[in-house]
Amino acid sequence: MPQVSDLTSFQMKVVLLGSGNVATHLAAALKDAGNEILQVWSRNSVNAELLASRLNSSSTAHFSALSPEADIYILAVSDDAIPELAGKFPFRNKLLVHTSGTTDMEALKNASTKIGVLYPLQTFSKSKSLDFAQTPIALEANSPEGLKILEMLVGKISRKVMELNSQQRRALHIAAVFACNFGNHLYTLSKEILRQNSLEFDLIRPLIIETASKVQLIEPEDAQTGPAVRGDYITIDRHLEFLQNDKDLRNLYELFTESIISKHR
Amino acid sequence: MPQVSDLTSFQMKVVLLGSGNVATHLAAALKDAGNEILQVWSRNSVNAELLASRLNSSSTAHFSALSPEADIYILAVSDDAIPELAGKFPFRNKLLVHTSGTTDMEALKNASTKIGVLYPLQTFSKSKSLDFAQTPIALEANSPEGLKILEMLVGKISRKVMELNSQQRRALHIAAVFACNFGNHLYTLSKEILRQNSLEFDLIRPLIIETASKVQLIEPEDAQTGPAVRGDYITIDRHLEFLQNDKDLRNLYELFTESIISKHR
Repeated sequence: MPQVSDLTSFQMKVVLLGSGNVATHLAAALKDAGNEILQVWSRNSVNAELLASRLNSSSTAHFSALSPEADIYILAVSDDAIPELAGKFPFRNKLLVHTSGTTDMEALKNASTKIGVLYPLQTFSKSKSLDFAQTPIALEANSPEGLKILEMLVGKISRKVMELNSQQRRALHIAAVFACNFGNHLYTLSKEILRQNSLEFDLIRPLIIETASKVQLIEPEDAQTGPAVRGDYITIDRHLEFLQNDKDLRNLYELFTESIISKHR
Repeated sequence: MPQVSDLTSFQMKVVLLGSGNVATHLAAALKDAGNEILQVWSRNSVNAELLASRLNSSSTAHFSALSPEADIYILAVSDDAIPELAGKFPFRNKLLVHTSGTTDMEALKNASTKIGVLYPLQTFSKSKSLDFAQTPIALEANSPEGLKILEMLVGKISRKVMELNSQQRRALHIAAVFACNFGNHLYTLSKEILRQNSLEFDLIRPLIIETASKVQLIEPEDAQTGPAVRGDYITIDRHLEFLQNDKDLRNLYELFTESIISKHR
């Protein structure tokens, strides 16, 4: 996969369209790296003002009032809002990018002649600050010039910048959903099993860290343990019997067990 | 849940029945804590000798040659071998315990009048040494005296010793299978999705550690992110379309999405 590195960053003028988690974290990192956040737009004028004041920026709640002076316009909104807002973008020749893992770059093609994507791969929580240097950022643009601008913009805030096409970016997003969103839900289910038997989630916490730490050094298929990979059908049957009154847990147990057995056959 | 702490440990004489991962790690920790490993039994006499030599112990491959001098006999073998070996145990009045998360204590009831369980909750790999102090150990015994002996034996090697009945111990094992064995398999599936799109697993590794670290401090239900908990059906549909040719991944994606939505409704 193509890696981009050692780029000199210049100060750029950025207009931020959005005021959610991604917009907030990204704007702060871009400003810290010396760029100018020219303007913040949000549908909600209070949110726009709030974020703008933290960025020494101006704000607006109207696309018609967007500044035409920026080098790049970053549309950091939820996926379902992208088509509508792209349709209202007023500048045909300004670089417009979205920040979605799952939306094709082409969703912007009627908005401007210069389009792209800037997708930071992380689980953003508003309350928690984030080390952007370790956050992979996937870029895409419809021209070499657009890509160059994106590389210059984020080259200073992340050490893991790469060019990915829309298909690869979607794969990356789905891989993160499996490993992290679904992984976290397994923790929730685990806690529920413990709670129903008067046991505390604290008992499992060290094992969770150990499991995630292991695959930092070795491959996950080599780290697999448990009854399924051992082919221990006595234990599997006892577990399914234990789970007999919870159809969801039983279905997940069966599906995982089959998947582990077929992967390690 | 009852906690056991501040127990003075005495030197005990231990006979170890088994030579696998649990037997190896447990024997080393017990010896380090000052106990005497009197004898090692293994069906395979070479394995028995090998482990015994590392423990300054003697070995045998025959139950008829077991020493009658030990305070405790630890049956650390796979679940399916427990009934057969318990049936051969020669001492009716010696304390016999197994180390299984899933097998009831009662599986030993025809072997001896003094029975129990000593279940260390960890993912044991032969190659990797383990910090037993952080390993929860669940105990069970059919008498207060038996429980006292178990507490004295492991009180010095782990700071997280607790008494659990067979039902709770099984729940703990199943909770660990969900959070850790199934969690690790999600990493394997994630790697596979990346590989099919010419992307490296390294891209996801920081996110995996971040996800496991988050739930050390907060509750997993509060740490949930992703399209399912946001109710972002546009992204969910795009992901399912992406996975349309892989029935297993699609089934898991659907099951997790439904489970997350129903849990967070």
